[in-house]
Amino acid sequence: MNSSKKKIINDPIYGFVTIPSGLIFELIEHPYFQRLRRIKQLGLSNLVYPGALHTRFQHVIGAMWLCSQSIEILKSKGIEISDDEETAVCAAVLLHDMGHGPFSHTLEGMLVSNVSHEKISIHFMHLLNEQLNGKLDLCIKIFSNQYHKKFLHQLVSSQLDMDRLDYLRRDSFFTGVQEGVIGHDRIINMLNVSNDELVIEEKGIYSVEKFLIARRLMYWQVYLHKTVIAAETLLVKIITRAKELADQKNELFATPAFAFFLYNKVDENTFFTNKKCIENYSMLDDSDILTSVKVWQNHSDEILSTLCSMLCNRNLPKIEISNTKFDSERINILQSKLKNKNDSEYLVYTDSVKNEAYSNDDFHINILYKNGTLLDITQASDQYNIEALSKTVTKYFLCYPKNL
Amino acid sequence: MNSSKKKIINDPIYGFVTIPSGLIFELIEHPYFQRLRRIKQLGLSNLVYPGALHTRFQHVIGAMWLCSQSIEILKSKGIEISDDEETAVCAAVLLHDMGHGPFSHTLEGMLVSNVSHEKISIHFMHLLNEQLNGKLDLCIKIFSNQYHKKFLHQLVSSQLDMDRLDYLRRDSFFTGVQEGVIGHDRIINMLNVSNDELVIEEKGIYSVEKFLIARRLMYWQVYLHKTVIAAETLLVKIITRAKELADQKNELFATPAFAFFLYNKVDENTFFTNKKCIENYSMLDDSDILTSVKVWQNHSDEILSTLCSMLCNRNLPKIEISNTKFDSERINILQSKLKNKNDSEYLVYTDSVKNEAYSNDDFHINILYKNGTLLDITQASDQYNIEALSKTVTKYFLCYPKNL
Amino acid sequence: MNSSKKKIINDPIYGFVTIPSGLIFELIEHPYFQRLRRIKQLGLSNLVYPGALHTRFQHVIGAMWLCSQSIEILKSKGIEISDDEETAVCAAVLLHDMGHGPFSHTLEGMLVSNVSHEKISIHFMHLLNEQLNGKLDLCIKIFSNQYHKKFLHQLVSSQLDMDRLDYLRRDSFFTGVQEGVIGHDRIINMLNVSNDELVIEEKGIYSVEKFLIARRLMYWQVYLHKTVIAAETLLVKIITRAKELADQKNELFATPAFAFFLYNKVDENTFFTNKKCIENYSMLDDSDILTSVKVWQNHSDEILSTLCSMLCNRNLPKIEISNTKFDSERINILQSKLKNKNDSEYLVYTDSVKNEAYSNDDFHINILYKNGTLLDITQASDQYNIEALSKTVTKYFLCYPKNL
Amino acid sequence: MNSSKKKIINDPIYGFVTIPSGLIFELIEHPYFQRLRRIKQLGLSNLVYPGALHTRFQHVIGAMWLCSQSIEILKSKGIEISDDEETAVCAAVLLHDMGHGPFSHTLEGMLVSNVSHEKISIHFMHLLNEQLNGKLDLCIKIFSNQYHKKFLHQLVSSQLDMDRLDYLRRDSFFTGVQEGVIGHDRIINMLNVSNDELVIEEKGIYSVEKFLIARRLMYWQVYLHKTVIAAETLLVKIITRAKELADQKNELFATPAFAFFLYNKVDENTFFTNKKCIENYSMLDDSDILTSVKVWQNHSDEILSTLCSMLCNRNLPKIEISNTKFDSERINILQSKLKNKNDSEYLVYTDSVKNEAYSNDDFHINILYKNGTLLDITQASDQYNIEALSKTVTKYFLCYPKNL
Repeated sequence: MNSSKKKIINDPIYGFVTIPSGLIFELIEHPYFQRLRRIKQLGLSNLVYPGALHTRFQHVIGAMWLCSQSIEILKSKGIEISDDEETAVCAAVLLHDMGHGPFSHTLEGMLVSNVSHEKISIHFMHLLNEQLNGKLDLCIKIFSNQYHKKFLHQLVSSQLDMDRLDYLRRDSFFTGVQEGVIGHDRIINMLNVSNDELVIEEKGIYSVEKFLIARRLMYWQVYLHKTVIAAETLLVKIITRAKELADQKNELFATPAFAFFLYNKVDENTFFTNKKCIENYSMLDDSDILTSVKVWQNHSDEILSTLCSMLCNRNLPKIEISNTKFDSERINILQSKLKNKNDSEYLVYTDSVKNEAYSNDDFHINILYKNGTLLDITQASDQYNIEALSKTVTKYFLCYPKNL
Repeated sequence: MNSSKKKIINDPIYGFVTIPSGLIFELIEHPYFQRLRRIKQLGLSNLVYPGALHTRFQHVIGAMWLCSQSIEILKSKGIEISDDEETAVCAAVLLHDMGHGPFSHTLEGMLVSNVSHEKISIHFMHLLNEQLNGKLDLCIKIFSNQYHKKFLHQLVSSQLDMDRLDYLRRDSFFTGVQEGVIGHDRIINMLNVSNDELVIEEKGIYSVEKFLIARRLMYWQVYLHKTVIAAETLLVKIITRAKELADQKNELFATPAFAFFLYNKVDENTFFTNKKCIENYSMLDDSDILTSVKVWQNHSDEILSTLCSMLCNRNLPKIEISNTKFDSERINILQSKLKNKNDSEYLVYTDSVKNEAYSNDDFHINILYKNGTLLDITQASDQYNIEALSKTVTKYFLCYPKNL
Repeated sequence: MNSSKKKIINDPIYGFVTIPSGLIFELIEHPYFQRLRRIKQLGLSNLVYPGALHTRFQHVIGAMWLCSQSIEILKSKGIEISDDEETAVCAAVLLHDMGHGPFSHTLEGMLVSNVSHEKISIHFMHLLNEQLNGKLDLCIKIFSNQYHKKFLHQLVSSQLDMDRLDYLRRDSFFTGVQEGVIGHDRIINMLNVSNDELVIEEKGIYSVEKFLIARRLMYWQVYLHKTVIAAETLLVKIITRAKELADQKNELFATPAFAFFLYNKVDENTFFTNKKCIENYSMLDDSDILTSVKVWQNHSDEILSTLCSMLCNRNLPKIEISNTKFDSERINILQSKLKNKNDSEYLVYTDSVKNEAYSNDDFHINILYKNGTLLDITQASDQYNIEALSKTVTKYFLCYPKNL
Repeated sequence: MNSSKKKIINDPIYGFVTIPSGLIFELIEHPYFQRLRRIKQLGLSNLVYPGALHTRFQHVIGAMWLCSQSIEILKSKGIEISDDEETAVCAAVLLHDMGHGPFSHTLEGMLVSNVSHEKISIHFMHLLNEQLNGKLDLCIKIFSNQYHKKFLHQLVSSQLDMDRLDYLRRDSFFTGVQEGVIGHDRIINMLNVSNDELVIEEKGIYSVEKFLIARRLMYWQVYLHKTVIAAETLLVKIITRAKELADQKNELFATPAFAFFLYNKVDENTFFTNKKCIENYSMLDDSDILTSVKVWQNHSDEILSTLCSMLCNRNLPKIEISNTKFDSERINILQSKLKNKNDSEYLVYTDSVKNEAYSNDDFHINILYKNGTLLDITQASDQYNIEALSKTVTKYFLCYPKNL
């Protein structure tokens, strides 16, 4: 007899997820990582899709699981991957989203001016590496694409990385939008390595097509759903107004960590040099923002309290979508209807969103034929519609109060 | 207290399927209809996808169910549909595949020369209508597109008909190919009628895109899977050879019904005038062919016995696929390697298959905008990839024995 | 043409959920109701099952949907239910969980001493009824079982109510524990009314058995999972300690609403007479508790800060389960090992949990036979194991710090 | 680069099933095995559950897959299992149903008098072993429980074997009866070996309970569904009558293989000594029976033709179920109403069915506690309802024509 020592996590999508090694388990147990349990993967999408409450925690555990399965497949096809490399690449997938703050992308670049979550992720990795005495050296190398086996980095970050395979499947599951369901197991089974690049075997071509198309549909149906945009831009306006008030020394209810970012201007330089920044950042999650927004409904600043009530009670702005820019005249007319002219930029505003399902710029998805030749998916496909997917679609939106 | 009189059928896809009326139930109980329980929806695809054993019976029950749900939706949107119309259109969906013979499309036009299953379906409908004293008059009108409400016919037969909605979902379920999973409930919820045409509301545009793409992927991944083609052309060769032997008065094991079609030349004219034809046809299903193929493995004709052994034991021909026609020289060389030159056309052969996910020719899928305007999906979509889908893709294949 | 006015909510379990009437929609839009979006259905179970982040909001929408479907089934069997009754019973199902506070059952009776969520739900209903000028009169009658058609109340609250049908299915889905999957559609299809009581038709007997067993398994596998108990009792200890500190006038970070309940003793009488109570209660959700627990990690009270760090970083107490009470000696020994004796009741403690899958006390699940006789499920079943389910199982647990 | 050589089979339940070794692949390709593609797992259940068309082929492939996964789990827990043992036990699972004839259990013991399918399976294994020069020696040893590692046999045949894990899941999937869905992955993850016996770790106890209960529910809801019994006893009556007519030298349409068993009395001794028996048996599948039944609808024997028409057109006998034996008087009265008294035993008959979800007789399901002790599930469980499951439930049925 012998008892199982492997830790297992229940996942409603993959069933049992096995933690592949002690280092991975140690990372998961770290407070920095546990914080991801409190950050929703899809920001405010749950206002449209009530099931979309899943977290960054679940997503990176799932992506790490797909990664360990992909590595098993590659090894079974004769690709050499050592145990250390396997742990390192799984760790890199696990940690790639560490830098996300409250509501993920929605507030990215706002609390810490213009700093992407990726930069913060790598900062967290270095901090953890210190605490773990260099056990993450190889992980960081792979994450930063400085390791000689490039295909390992591509598992972490590329057009077909574990991140995307997991998030499409997961977001689809929790929103209930079947359009995003992809055959992730088929894609993983078709992975191979050629010329040190991650490639897809010929038989997987239709699955890759489906994957690219599913991604595009999920963009418009979920990620850039117009009501979601209305809610997320509303939250951005709230934080903008609150910071403005904080600059003017107004009092604002907030947890100490959130107050730190409201009352201090934190730019890239400050963030990476002043230790207090990362310390406070590591304490932040969705609940800090949520409680403040709730309390601010009673703030004396009318703009702030109005915006906060709208969000709490899901009384969202009306939003229009267009393929062309909105007339500035149209906007002026709408703004002129507002009672209080000071509110105008907060209540009537326009901006744009875009998607890019398959980018031509960087990494190509290469299809490996039985005779050994490689072709990019846009050429390998029946040529008609995949190329089209590589074009960026831009849509403009205009928000204004419902009663206007 | 009151006991439920509604008949219910268990469907692994939709759960409980309710039989909407007495006439529908009467049709389902008819021997002509029960025959569909013994005809597989996907011919020999189960040799590649072992789960694909579902039948025409299941499919038409499912399509009928989607139809009755679509009608509920349309009525809830204010479209007037009487109870008689509802029953008639459901009956039309239910009966639209009655004309299929053994192995569905695989042998279409072979037992009854050049007669499509649709023509036989309508023949069956007229026979049933006689037996039912005209209860199917309206059903037949709708099926033949001679009823003034055109949108009812479009539920039965169009680019977005109940047939397609069900078969994509069902074939996907039973093959296990997730690529075909479509949001059929979303599409049904977005149905509406404008200018007497079935249309999709604006919000359903991405679901329609997904549907068209899923259909195309299912074509190449399942319906025209190369091993399936190899198996189905093999069966065609077997029947061709058997009919040749029958012409020469050779004895062939067969059920009486199958023997009728082996030993008689049945063309369109004969079929619709000689009552014995439909009588025998209504007795045929997959098992008639299967048993003969099994027994013919021991037939004295070497060509026939070879082909039959290949099929029974899943020792299928090798198949190559190409975007261009195969060289006649290549074929000649392959045929010259055969021991017995007489076999050549049975063992080495080439042909082509094509798909057309969205046809520009006939019915357009119209998108209905909130302001009331209509746009074809190819224009309504973000324009890049749907238009591409309307182009026909042709692929050529070459089959020859594995040991050649 | 005619555009759909029916509101639709996406649910990952049932697909499209249609809002059946204007009143229901009005209730859903109310801030009191929107609050349920921020209260997790399963408290801290997500620390064991990371997917279990679904909310009371989703649950009651789902239960309301099952209710409207059940009513359709009953009406199709000839049971008379008016439109007003239908709306009222759906509203009652929708509002039955309004009274839940942060983390649902975990903190029940703590913020408002010994007041159940049901009592608070009915209080909310009366408040809403005032605002809606009596539109909820019938709803409240049915909820309080004062309406003459008793079976309507049983849809809201009984051994087989919509609440249970939804939560088993939903908790199963989000935890990924397949043991709780029940055939809710089969049960709903077998519903009928006999002698003014909700009954199950004979054919549904196995589904009811399965439902009772699934419920029991979900209790032990999810609701009373030992790690969940460890986490939830830890949270209870935190709130207990915080209230103790508040009593002693210590300062504690909290939102105004949460502070109200920390610094005031609110019992049943106060709660229902002082309007400030319900006002503050209606502002509370999980995030109020979460942010305080995070901030309190740095509180000067060592007991509080220790407990809070344990919860935030998922460093949970060790827990043992037993069928018998734990020795007081065992507990004394464990407590004596603690450095600080004052902590003992917070760090080493024992208590019990129990489940009762099918209660004999009140409502019986009656099975309706074709000949019209009724039998309780314990008699109707093959008699062996269902009776057993009606017995209460009690389990004792003991918690103590991991390092002890 | 390196191309995958592992064969993959698409399964709608498990996704990709990998063929673990060359020997397994060789076995699957054998004509004896391919025959299982044409034998439905659930006989005539598809007349009640139209989706239940899955075959023995799919089932044993699935069970083999679960077996190879179980072995991975056991090895990861330190149990020593060599590659040869792994292949042998997987082969044993794969071949354990080889002996099934047309319609699986329905006709068991009828074509070959009183010989179980297990005995025929082992006969097939010996034949294959000869052809494969002893490669199945170890497989046969394990299958016959003559190998020293008893737990390997228990994977093939025991209360918790791979057979049961697969068939519950699969029958549930294809019938659409959710009651049978079990957490097979959870059970497999909890497998361990103690004292050379397959055991379940403590944490899996609820899953085992669920498994036992699901099995029982599937018995009554599917396997022993009364309409299924009506159909299957009807088929038994047909074969009985046909053999009677064959004995009297009447002519009966049949394939040569089926004719062999109709016109010869084949008992155990004959079957295992006369090579023609197994030769003909290996040619039989569902289609042989189906075609004969169809053709016999026109047979001059009125009893035979009546019974065959009833089955083909799903005009099944009426069936009553009771917990006690039916009165012989009741039967006499029914029989006396028949026009033709000779038909009586074919048209009015009674018999019984029973189930036994968990048998106390032989193998116990042992639960392994963390401290190393073992307890049988009936003791380990909360004691109330599992013990009850071990009692046999017998039900009596009575069949007679609908119009009687």
